[in-house]
Amino acid sequence: MNREERITLLQEKANRLRLHCLRATTAAGSGHPTSCLSAAELVATLFFHVMRYDPKRPDHPGNDRFVLSKGHAAPLLYAAWAEAGAFPPEQLLDLRKFGSIFEGHPTPRFPGALVATGSLGQGLSMATGMALAGKRVAQAPWRVYALLGDGECAEGAVWEAAAFAAYYKLDNLVAVVDVNRLGQSQPTMYQHDTTTYARRFAAAGWQAFEVKGHDLRQILDAFDRIAQVKGQPAALIARTLKGKGVSFLEDKEGWHGKAVPRDDLPKALAEIGVNENPGGTVEIAPPSPVRPLPAPTGRMEEPNYQPGQKVATREAYGAALVKLGRVNPRLVAVDGDVKNSTFAEIFTQAFPDRFFECFIAEQNMLGVAIGLAATGWIPFASSFAAFHTRAYDFIRMAAISRANVKLLGTHCGVSIGEDGPSQMGLEDIAMMRAVPGSVILYPADAVAMERMVAEAADHQGIVYLRASRPKTPVIYPNSERFPIGGAKVLRRSDRDRATLVAAGVTLYEALAAHDELAKQGIPVRVIDAYSVKPIDRATLLEAARATANTLIVVEDHYYDGGLGDAVLSALAQDGIRVVKLAVQEVPMSGKPEELLDAAGLSARHLLATVKKLPGS
Amino acid sequence: MNREERITLLQEKANRLRLHCLRATTAAGSGHPTSCLSAAELVATLFFHVMRYDPKRPDHPGNDRFVLSKGHAAPLLYAAWAEAGAFPPEQLLDLRKFGSIFEGHPTPRFPGALVATGSLGQGLSMATGMALAGKRVAQAPWRVYALLGDGECAEGAVWEAAAFAAYYKLDNLVAVVDVNRLGQSQPTMYQHDTTTYARRFAAAGWQAFEVKGHDLRQILDAFDRIAQVKGQPAALIARTLKGKGVSFLEDKEGWHGKAVPRDDLPKALAEIGVNENPGGTVEIAPPSPVRPLPAPTGRMEEPNYQPGQKVATREAYGAALVKLGRVNPRLVAVDGDVKNSTFAEIFTQAFPDRFFECFIAEQNMLGVAIGLAATGWIPFASSFAAFHTRAYDFIRMAAISRANVKLLGTHCGVSIGEDGPSQMGLEDIAMMRAVPGSVILYPADAVAMERMVAEAADHQGIVYLRASRPKTPVIYPNSERFPIGGAKVLRRSDRDRATLVAAGVTLYEALAAHDELAKQGIPVRVIDAYSVKPIDRATLLEAARATANTLIVVEDHYYDGGLGDAVLSALAQDGIRVVKLAVQEVPMSGKPEELLDAAGLSARHLLATVKKLPGS
Repeated sequence: MNREERITLLQEKANRLRLHCLRATTAAGSGHPTSCLSAAELVATLFFHVMRYDPKRPDHPGNDRFVLSKGHAAPLLYAAWAEAGAFPPEQLLDLRKFGSIFEGHPTPRFPGALVATGSLGQGLSMATGMALAGKRVAQAPWRVYALLGDGECAEGAVWEAAAFAAYYKLDNLVAVVDVNRLGQSQPTMYQHDTTTYARRFAAAGWQAFEVKGHDLRQILDAFDRIAQVKGQPAALIARTLKGKGVSFLEDKEGWHGKAVPRDDLPKALAEIGVNENPGGTVEIAPPSPVRPLPAPTGRMEEPNYQPGQKVATREAYGAALVKLGRVNPRLVAVDGDVKNSTFAEIFTQAFPDRFFECFIAEQNMLGVAIGLAATGWIPFASSFAAFHTRAYDFIRMAAISRANVKLLGTHCGVSIGEDGPSQMGLEDIAMMRAVPGSVILYPADAVAMERMVAEAADHQGIVYLRASRPKTPVIYPNSERFPIGGAKVLRRSDRDRATLVAAGVTLYEALAAHDELAKQGIPVRVIDAYSVKPIDRATLLEAARATANTLIVVEDHYYDGGLGDAVLSALAQDGIRVVKLAVQEVPMSGKPEELLDAAGLSARHLLATVKKLPGS
Repeated sequence: MNREERITLLQEKANRLRLHCLRATTAAGSGHPTSCLSAAELVATLFFHVMRYDPKRPDHPGNDRFVLSKGHAAPLLYAAWAEAGAFPPEQLLDLRKFGSIFEGHPTPRFPGALVATGSLGQGLSMATGMALAGKRVAQAPWRVYALLGDGECAEGAVWEAAAFAAYYKLDNLVAVVDVNRLGQSQPTMYQHDTTTYARRFAAAGWQAFEVKGHDLRQILDAFDRIAQVKGQPAALIARTLKGKGVSFLEDKEGWHGKAVPRDDLPKALAEIGVNENPGGTVEIAPPSPVRPLPAPTGRMEEPNYQPGQKVATREAYGAALVKLGRVNPRLVAVDGDVKNSTFAEIFTQAFPDRFFECFIAEQNMLGVAIGLAATGWIPFASSFAAFHTRAYDFIRMAAISRANVKLLGTHCGVSIGEDGPSQMGLEDIAMMRAVPGSVILYPADAVAMERMVAEAADHQGIVYLRASRPKTPVIYPNSERFPIGGAKVLRRSDRDRATLVAAGVTLYEALAAHDELAKQGIPVRVIDAYSVKPIDRATLLEAARATANTLIVVEDHYYDGGLGDAVLSALAQDGIRVVKLAVQEVPMSGKPEELLDAAGLSARHLLATVKKLPGS
């Protein structure tokens, strides 16, 4: 096929994509057809000329990857796969129906969506993670294409990803920006000034190309040049018209997120002028040859600590990551310039090819992790617990993506001491509990942390590991196991007058309170609730029943949403009384022990709380 | 004083700042002296040559504003105010002590810190908000200076702010970037490549100046030129050395966040070579003349709805904002390109000079709001509830800043329907509950929303208003009041067999369930828990006591951390049973009513739940 024939066919494909998008959104009565129409030529060129993939196997490991960062153009994504032959186009009319895989914004329930998008400005980070996996981890030949809207380029995460991708010289990554000028509620910041987008990408280290985004000759030429770019990622900045192809939609305000009314659809379709039975066939290049991902080679080395040895759980995290990395070649790690505090640094030294410094850009770090996970790797992303809050929207979307990512949050709570409240993770449990399907593990000692790193890697889904800054004595034997959903009853007797539920640093306060109370003849039960979510309901309930239906929960976290609420929620229908000891206001700088005491979390306060219980 | 004399004096000031920072951090035994030393000439020039302010009145409204975005250089901020005469420098030795205002990272407990910093990459947004307040709202002559580290320029929020400030032509804003090459754990992405920083700022629309950051002649020349910049913000990109002035610290890795050991301090101080009794005096220019902020002029117009009228609460938000804006000239609003969905658009049309479109960049939107609040305005920031998660770290820091910001989150829950999970705010209550001191209001109808907007404006601190997408019938009389901390008992009898606690859209499901159960002879109580935080414990407890110590809580939010947990927490020690009906897994696209039913939140499920209660 010569170039002109190809252009004719691609234009027909573009128009067929437009047709599908208009029909499906009108049938649904909602959606974003105009945001699809602007990108029809771009997507037609990607799916029917540029990308190598198997339309029948969207999960083929040798496929080029496509990320629809502008997720509201979901119908265009679905239409492209349909036109490629993945399924009959008639199915597109199920768009937005309950139970359909064609959701309003893409989720992996649609096999052609490797990640969920629709929270804008995230797709480039995920695509960057995939490109990193391809180029740096797997050394595979497949390439990654992300389609961005112009409006979403206002999101800082786009520029985090841009800087990161250039730093790692990801020349297997292409960003296509659909500059259709119109946002949801008004024109975008730069409108049709494609030069500013190009300058910003170039300043971040990309090779940028400006084209007219409905001119297939220009688009094809640009992709030819992009294929030659080496040592840096490429951006195609395309000047387009929102609603392109339909006179009453084209470049018009007030049409964002609106389906064409049923009565106007025939006119719109007529203007698109689709040839329903085009001559000629577009051939899609097959996936690249790839090696299978490496498999685990054995079991992780056991913990090896001395009882009483003082080790910070974050230090045990680093140690465990190295041990696990030795036997599981799929393990990779990222960090946001705190690797000497999170101890991810040890992994970096052991496996320099499987660690990627993300610098101080936690959103992109999460996006990269999601991208790595979407290509089969098991990413551990470490930062201060407080700074994972920066990426909460990415974490939220990771759950919708069903992403297999692991987070370590260190420096939780007031026990970090002098650095002050901005560095204290005090809402991290609340934040992570609200993520559907998440697991939250909070080890108190080094043995527990090592075991939980292994549990996290084995579990399919989002796992959050909470680590403390201070060194804490080893209290568990090296053989101890910490299954997800468990708890440890560390002190118990048949005469217990109260139960203390703790985790992390507060467990040591609870143990100290236990010892002092024992001296005073008041036996109490102590539970290490290391699995905050899911939580060990049976153990908690048994303890509560044994101690006057009351539990005292002490945690280095804000009062709302933490371990105390997790306990309450698990026992919501059991009529249990829970005394919550937690951080009630913004803390200050100070020594860890001063701050734990000021927040009412120290052994002294536990003692007083036990003594104030009715019947004590 | 001629230029050479000024330079001599500024160099002395810079060295005295170094001396204070080294002494204070060594006394504290922790801190970030090397990050202070790199910026000593920059800060000395700002505080003793460039800025106009009253050192004795850091809250003077005519002061130029300074934001230390690189918050870990806190000792430098404190030292600058001390050297300016705000307090005796000896007090600096209280750094990082419990109770001291000189915290590890700045908080407004130190009067010279207008906002809390220390979560990196946020300061430029806050400074931008202040500059916006000065130039666009107050038309005041004072200027705003933000000191950024190079490492934090990896944060996307910096580039959100950069684009925004250029869009609004904030030529009263200056960013000073201390390019000291070294991050916490390794060299930064661009190391000493100041040209890349300059290019990125220039591409975003700034006038950028590169200087050697320890050369006072270059710094002074650059500030002279910056004073002439019109129509765009200015960036001073300064090549510096971390640890500058002390041979064993200068440009050395491994010294981030470490105090000089006590024994090495004399050597370090000797190398700084401070003249403890300098000749000559630096005169600080006084604050600019300013008009006082405008005061409220009257009471907000009452709601005016018909019973049963169907109005979305988000629509009532827009209406209320306009009414309030008419009588309170301090009210300003921002939105992230969803103002036609949040109905902030109505305010925009009524008060175009008091609304600022932030485009799709929610982090910067929050930072701008914090900056507006820090200059005395009352900002309302609206977006989809789901997209406020993007700004969680800014919200976290807003609490530490004691910022008087108001958030509206619309499109909460599965009841948005077809757009799918990425657009549904399902963790927003959990997120906002964990913010210390926050207020969460969740109106069910238009009257309630209008009243709550007024409550939010009157309350000092962070208020989150939760709004739904669907239209809901007006159920409250126009005269009804909704104080923070209250609840409404909408249905009650002396024979109630159960209590349904709901809010927002689920309140209508509860009312429908009530009516159906009444037909079946089963009276139930219905409570509108519109104030999620603080919650009306007394009303909930009374209802629980009246209905077998049991409450059924139904909410359009994920299962963990929402209204159900808020109820449990309020009644934690009362032995109450709570049945939580909430969203248990990632939802799909579908019709609102389909999704509410699929999640188990519809009247039908409430009915079944009541009937399953013991004794029913």
